[in-house]
Amino acid sequence: MQFTSEQRLDDGVLEREFTLGDIPGILWTPASASASTPVPLILLGPAPLGLRKMYPRLVARAQHSAAEGFATATIELPGSGDRPRWPAAEQARTDLRRAVEAGETVSDEIIDAFILPLVEKAVPEWQSALDALLALPEIGGPVGYSGGVISIGVRLAVVEPRIVAAGLFAGSFVPRAMFEEARQVTIPLHILLQWDDEGNDRQAALDLFDAFGSKEKSLHANMGGHTGVPQFAGDAAAQFFTRHLK
Amino acid sequence: MQFTSEQRLDDGVLEREFTLGDIPGILWTPASASASTPVPLILLGPAPLGLRKMYPRLVARAQHSAAEGFATATIELPGSGDRPRWPAAEQARTDLRRAVEAGETVSDEIIDAFILPLVEKAVPEWQSALDALLALPEIGGPVGYSGGVISIGVRLAVVEPRIVAAGLFAGSFVPRAMFEEARQVTIPLHILLQWDDEGNDRQAALDLFDAFGSKEKSLHANMGGHTGVPQFAGDAAAQFFTRHLK
Repeated sequence: MQFTSEQRLDDGVLEREFTLGDIPGILWTPASASASTPVPLILLGPAPLGLRKMYPRLVARAQHSAAEGFATATIELPGSGDRPRWPAAEQARTDLRRAVEAGETVSDEIIDAFILPLVEKAVPEWQSALDALLALPEIGGPVGYSGGVISIGVRLAVVEPRIVAAGLFAGSFVPRAMFEEARQVTIPLHILLQWDDEGNDRQAALDLFDAFGSKEKSLHANMGGHTGVPQFAGDAAAQFFTRHLK
Repeated sequence: MQFTSEQRLDDGVLEREFTLGDIPGILWTPASASASTPVPLILLGPAPLGLRKMYPRLVARAQHSAAEGFATATIELPGSGDRPRWPAAEQARTDLRRAVEAGETVSDEIIDAFILPLVEKAVPEWQSALDALLALPEIGGPVGYSGGVISIGVRLAVVEPRIVAAGLFAGSFVPRAMFEEARQVTIPLHILLQWDDEGNDRQAALDLFDAFGSKEKSLHANMGGHTGVPQFAGDAAAQFFTRHLK
């Protein structure tokens, strides 16, 4: 893990860009974080549009989390941002967009072809990032995961025991295979669903919530469309992490 | 409205029992409430088991609300507690219990016979109670409604303009007619659903949430059975009222 830039934001949060091999990422730590007072970490789930495009939303979430005493970090998805294109994924994404724009039901084949290889490739990268982040003296634990591309969150919740709580955004297509994996998840979950998100399959999100094996799981459904998560819903998610990571 | 008893609870909350005609009720006001600093009011929705049996849960909610600066009040449902039996309602309730215990689907006829007359009778009583409560100098406004027997909450939200926000518990049977009324509701809503509440029709609760006309509506689904609403869900409901009544 190589830090490539560093700046202090207005509120004292330290923002550091890094590379992990050829994967770019960003780490935000509250001013209070130090080797003698290490802080818990929230992984900010992947940004399907790429880190640059998602930066304003990511930094807002990072600063909100820092105010609660959490470090946050994220890395670029395979095939996103400046990372090398990935022809199979591009094709799957194109097929999916075409189906959505034509108002067709998106077939399981298209969803599988788009999401499953992404999960396979991304999850080990997030685990490597976690290794590197937890090796920093100012980052303690426990670790939470917060984000979209819900299938990556589901897989991480199953395979990565260092993640003790997850806040997931039910706003993306879910392969059928993930419903089975969801049954194996046992950590506390906080699921956000934008009820009138036209690009999202509401019933699939409800079925996935039902499938999770966790004893503590909450579904928060709100109005406002895909990107219109209300401020109070963000506050509730923050409280979830405070309950489980402090 | 006649006060019939008065006591100070440990935390300074003033608990007063009252009668409104022949309807018993209870009013809780925070120690801070006075004519010069009147407080907002939350109506604690009806207690189907009767005020006496529900008292421990009601007073806990009242004290929690008082700590946030709210007065709370509730009245006995028609046919509940010490109020005169109501043979038609008793019969409907018996039919409903029998169907539930036999594991049968509860028919729309049984649900209608149980709930609709209760809504018709109870809602004007709650409105009279509101008249009397708002006439007290230590009770200001605005007014919220929080509670179960969700159909009473729906009707009140439609017909009672003094109620500006409602937290509803989706834990009871809902007549089909209420789905149409739900479309007329426009105030902010916070709906609690116990996901694995076996006595509740989850799909009906989701359909009702979908039907509400409110621009701001949130559904919070949690685990823990009908009476196992987690503490953090209660806190989230309290924050909803703080957002809308302060």
